Amino acid sequence: MTSEFLQHVQQAFRAVQDEQVAAIASFDGGLTITRDAWDRPGGGGGDTRAFSQGQVIEKGGLNFSAVEGDVGPALQEQLQTKATRFAATGVSSVLHPLNPHVPIIHMNVRYFSLDDGTWWFGGGIDLTPHYILPEEARAFHADLKSVCDAHDVADYAAFKPWADRYFYSPHRGESRGVGGIFFDHLGRDGDADPHSALAFCVALASAYSGIYQRRAQAFVDRPFSPLEKQWQGLRRGRYVEFNLVHDRGTRFGLVSGGRTESILMSLPSQANWAYDFRPEPGSREEQTLEWLRQGEKGVDWLSA
Amino acid sequence: MTSEFLQHVQQAFRAVQDEQVAAIASFDGGLTITRDAWDRPGGGGGDTRAFSQGQVIEKGGLNFSAVEGDVGPALQEQLQTKATRFAATGVSSVLHPLNPHVPIIHMNVRYFSLDDGTWWFGGGIDLTPHYILPEEARAFHADLKSVCDAHDVADYAAFKPWADRYFYSPHRGESRGVGGIFFDHLGRDGDADPHSALAFCVALASAYSGIYQRRAQAFVDRPFSPLEKQWQGLRRGRYVEFNLVHDRGTRFGLVSGGRTESILMSLPSQANWAYDFRPEPGSREEQTLEWLRQGEKGVDWLSA
Repeated sequence: MTSEFLQHVQQAFRAVQDEQVAAIASFDGGLTITRDAWDRPGGGGGDTRAFSQGQVIEKGGLNFSAVEGDVGPALQEQLQTKATRFAATGVSSVLHPLNPHVPIIHMNVRYFSLDDGTWWFGGGIDLTPHYILPEEARAFHADLKSVCDAHDVADYAAFKPWADRYFYSPHRGESRGVGGIFFDHLGRDGDADPHSALAFCVALASAYSGIYQRRAQAFVDRPFSPLEKQWQGLRRGRYVEFNLVHDRGTRFGLVSGGRTESILMSLPSQANWAYDFRPEPGSREEQTLEWLRQGEKGVDWLSA
Repeated sequence: MTSEFLQHVQQAFRAVQDEQVAAIASFDGGLTITRDAWDRPGGGGGDTRAFSQGQVIEKGGLNFSAVEGDVGPALQEQLQTKATRFAATGVSSVLHPLNPHVPIIHMNVRYFSLDDGTWWFGGGIDLTPHYILPEEARAFHADLKSVCDAHDVADYAAFKPWADRYFYSPHRGESRGVGGIFFDHLGRDGDADPHSALAFCVALASAYSGIYQRRAQAFVDRPFSPLEKQWQGLRRGRYVEFNLVHDRGTRFGLVSGGRTESILMSLPSQANWAYDFRPEPGSREEQTLEWLRQGEKGVDWLSA
């Protein structure tokens, strides 16, 4: 694609970052937002908005980045390309709530292009409740399906199982949460024109704060016990494990010299581990584990 | 090597596990020890001793395992071998103390053999203080050098920089702690006879609890502030990052179907993250960071 289109994508992603940060700040009045503009030594940079100590959100962030650089031999082999320059731009976010009854959410949209003319979009949204309620998972997936259904280039029926496969921890035999949608290489093989793919990504990112608010607001003032807080810490431990052991975006970022503080904005304020913790039989903690242990195929939440 | 020697190694490692668990229990009278004997589906098994809620040690463990199985194509390529069966046995431990003035310690010794006659030993001990005191690091390294000096097959001058390279987090530009010793493939290329290599590994593992006690005992009753506890949580976060992102043993274990609960016994009870945390200029936290940021070459603690 042209550098003109790249600039167009960057502007659209910057705008959606501003819009979503404002919406989240409006939803969580107590949130501290730290803004950090940074340059990347190899080219480009980013704008990190780190969230802390809100009434709803304990820690999180919503980042924009627009980087470019040389395609080294390793990346050439991985991408099966002879291209020598790349450009990548994206918006990504994770929100870790204070209250264990409120779920964790993650969103990312990104655009990648090479100087041989290849380009694609990728992204997704997924939800990680500490306590899974099927009716909440169903409403979350219904929201995602609505966004997909409004865009010809988006296919909920394909993107939903993609998230189930992606957000799975084989070493635990557990899904990260109730999934969501995930897609990659959109447009690379002629399956989407660039403007339609961008419109879908912007619509998805624009829906983010509303999707979260609808899943959070009924629970933000719900009392919680020390046991429920302990369970949240252990589930956050699993979130840390997934991100550091399996998540391809995190690992690629860390080993390719990405900005560590911005990448690891995804980690919670506090996480816990206990040897071989097993919830009480019949407890809500055990019910959640049962939902998470349905395997890489996940659960068809819209019919669950 | 013969299966007779393998059994000999297994017995020696089991004995050193019992001896070291008893020594740690004697040092930390309040420790809860959970014993878990387990079988591995592909062959062999292990004996996990999980530690929790002691007066000194908040969480940790000291594990024995003896596993065997088929050498799959991936491992054949990695090891450059046509062998079809492997056997591995080892003892490993991590101790996370309650008090931030007491360091974290890690120990591992292991023996690996193939049915083509190839075999080797590996292992090491390294120390991760939350607050680095050069005189403590020096005494720790002096202890390790003494163990090495008593064994012709062990070379502190080679094993010390090996630990510095191994226990390094490139994505943070930080060493995990003050290093220690690390070695691998001992005996594979004719540099050690099997009985001498085993004797060194057993001596190293047998020295473990004493080495830790000498570094811990002066600090276990030292008062600590909320700030010092917060710093411990952040340093534990780095420990989690190292183990899940870089540690080859942990990653090999998790992706090769090892027993997750035993492998992740190395993680702390609680770890914390904060966006771009920077200690006060001139503080003890900043001094520790300066020691950790000396690069992969580490620090020559015996002369520091």
